[in-house]
Amino acid sequence: MTIVAHEPEARPTRRPAALREIRVALLGLGQVGSALAELSSTTTQGALTGRFRLTAALVRDPHKPRRVDTTPLTLLTDGKAALASTPDVVVEVLGGIEPARTLVLAALDAGIPVVTANKTLLAYCGTELAARASAAGVPFLYEASVLAGVPFLGALQRRPLAGAVTSLRGIVNGTSNYVLSRIAHDRIDFAEALAAAQRAGYAEADPAKDVDGDDAVEKLCVLLRQFAGFDVHPSQIEKAGIGSVEPGDQEHAAAFGGCIRPLVAADWPDGRLTAYAGPAYIDGAHAFSRVDGVQNAVALTTRWSGELLFSGPGAGPVVTAATVLDDVVEAVESGGHERGAPATPVEVDALDAAPWFLRLTAAALGEHDAPALLSTLGVRLRRASHIDARGGHHSQRLLTHPCARAHIDAALDVLAAKTGSRSWRIPVVE
Amino acid sequence: MTIVAHEPEARPTRRPAALREIRVALLGLGQVGSALAELSSTTTQGALTGRFRLTAALVRDPHKPRRVDTTPLTLLTDGKAALASTPDVVVEVLGGIEPARTLVLAALDAGIPVVTANKTLLAYCGTELAARASAAGVPFLYEASVLAGVPFLGALQRRPLAGAVTSLRGIVNGTSNYVLSRIAHDRIDFAEALAAAQRAGYAEADPAKDVDGDDAVEKLCVLLRQFAGFDVHPSQIEKAGIGSVEPGDQEHAAAFGGCIRPLVAADWPDGRLTAYAGPAYIDGAHAFSRVDGVQNAVALTTRWSGELLFSGPGAGPVVTAATVLDDVVEAVESGGHERGAPATPVEVDALDAAPWFLRLTAAALGEHDAPALLSTLGVRLRRASHIDARGGHHSQRLLTHPCARAHIDAALDVLAAKTGSRSWRIPVVE
Repeated sequence: MTIVAHEPEARPTRRPAALREIRVALLGLGQVGSALAELSSTTTQGALTGRFRLTAALVRDPHKPRRVDTTPLTLLTDGKAALASTPDVVVEVLGGIEPARTLVLAALDAGIPVVTANKTLLAYCGTELAARASAAGVPFLYEASVLAGVPFLGALQRRPLAGAVTSLRGIVNGTSNYVLSRIAHDRIDFAEALAAAQRAGYAEADPAKDVDGDDAVEKLCVLLRQFAGFDVHPSQIEKAGIGSVEPGDQEHAAAFGGCIRPLVAADWPDGRLTAYAGPAYIDGAHAFSRVDGVQNAVALTTRWSGELLFSGPGAGPVVTAATVLDDVVEAVESGGHERGAPATPVEVDALDAAPWFLRLTAAALGEHDAPALLSTLGVRLRRASHIDARGGHHSQRLLTHPCARAHIDAALDVLAAKTGSRSWRIPVVE
Repeated sequence: MTIVAHEPEARPTRRPAALREIRVALLGLGQVGSALAELSSTTTQGALTGRFRLTAALVRDPHKPRRVDTTPLTLLTDGKAALASTPDVVVEVLGGIEPARTLVLAALDAGIPVVTANKTLLAYCGTELAARASAAGVPFLYEASVLAGVPFLGALQRRPLAGAVTSLRGIVNGTSNYVLSRIAHDRIDFAEALAAAQRAGYAEADPAKDVDGDDAVEKLCVLLRQFAGFDVHPSQIEKAGIGSVEPGDQEHAAAFGGCIRPLVAADWPDGRLTAYAGPAYIDGAHAFSRVDGVQNAVALTTRWSGELLFSGPGAGPVVTAATVLDDVVEAVESGGHERGAPATPVEVDALDAAPWFLRLTAAALGEHDAPALLSTLGVRLRRASHIDARGGHHSQRLLTHPCARAHIDAALDVLAAKTGSRSWRIPVVE
């Protein structure tokens, strides 16, 4: 282990990228960075054996014990020094915005291709970074940022007709999908399912970003920039967490023939964007009903190629590291993908009209006929469950026909006034 | 319409591929060729507007009426003249082996990139053509040959880690999947379902190649060359048609929690290849259980990225044409994908051990206890349907635990001798 915490000598002339050795400066040596350091030195895949050379690894604390053998690595605490280690490619797996943003911009300005797996950086600064990469004519790849493991962002960027996307649906957060799957299969509550996810290594100690929907929103922003050319800030997206999903919701969703999944959904039929990230009911005939556990998926409606579905692991240190290394290979062998116009800002509408999955809860719901009341209020129902009586409360689930949000909310207010019921609604996504 | 049926003047110097105009020589003006001629002149996608120029269209009969406007096209009947029309890319959509093979080889030898959608050509001559393209250093792309519409062959070829595939499953023939879906949903028999597919434009007048499995076998050969590096001849693959699937099979498959789909399956755990193409039972939890109608899908088990699923339309003139045009764009903008070693011949084993879905039929099956008999013969059963009594015959469906093929066949022979039953078996694929 070599520690250099200050500026090294002047950067020598860059080697041409087509050399057999691929020199990589690694920014970040956390879970993904460690997996990458290991995989890059051990892979015997195809023509990659012994081909990667890590020129530097940027860390905060060079003395921290790590699960990866750091002996062959040059650990640096100075980002600029890492960039000066004459890499062919800079790999950014620091996570978060700073110092990642500053270092990525510096690399691009210096003409060094950049690969990142950092969806937060892309969601908040993607337009700026892509513009800088484009101006510098330098590859900037981020296949691992959404649906890691499944190559589709780069493939569709190279292919203008397949990439003519008009709407998208996704299950892009494995933690949330695992938690909702466990609630469905094992009839355990949210807290138990989350604890199970943590024990299985599928959730962080602080799972808020996953279960509250922020991670999914960031990935949706990446997808919208990629496929719609929209520069959307995460705060623009309507978001709901999965913490309010109860075992009874999944139980009755199954009885209705579907299930509740953590979805992202966006439509832009005439340039007007509608987007949502949160739990949603989907029908059992939908491909997403078979995307279970930590599995992720993205479905794209395209102009020329119908409905395309991509599914795979989506996350995990080794999968992410492999995806990043494939991007590194693409960056040096195939160059960047030609880009279109820079992303443009757009207003984002929340979902307005949808069918809805409703949960009504009251101390004495059984004394009222809530479905009949809703019908008289103009809310057409497709399905209604029996009334559950548990823990001194009554609850009932309903599936509506498409109904404007203002309409359903007004009807639920009337219902609350008449019956004392509380309500919870999520959209049905098709 | 200009008709030139003989050699034109000497070919001028080729233009550099990076020019804004993309000159395409089109070999074949059938359904796909016509869709391509139309799409290439009308698309306004991204930077493609007005960019494609068809330098020639090779046809058998220039006077045949066609649904596409041929006025702006130079129709040729001489393949060499078409190649001499100074294209940037040659697109081969003739189908079949000759004259496609000779013309593709001639184009590659002349240094002209080739895009083809022709799985028959690739299945029988793919190794030869890839070797010639590689020797000439010329792009040779065929994304539309399997799972048209979904870009995955090229993407995985560029990405050595994601492309480290160890087994594959696919629904790669839309006609067969449509027919089996109709049998399942509408309880109609094979002939009725096939007629429905023909009326819907999903089956050819002569559907043999689709429903007998030859089309699926050819696509499996393409996938095996691509992902396993195996040079497999279609005659090496065990194949079964879907014509023997009865409505009762789908009905009981559904009762067992699964369905019968037209699958291709291949495993090569230690370099030893097992492959199958034909109807198979899959469980309702499998993603393929939601790949319905003409939809296609390919699932790849990979070394680093888990299970990847790609799904989309898979066929259709416009989808295929769009995929071919995207390949054309890739050929001129990104060049070819780096290739590995040439494919090598390999022996192919038929599926040996699997769970099996069985249909037993006899005039008086009800007089025997077939499940009990099979159990005494060492065939362990997971599920048995009730006995159907229709048209004077009794039939029963069984789902077994994994069992060697020789074992199950010997047991069925004993059963036939004791009960007079006929049996039909398909594998359960997981």
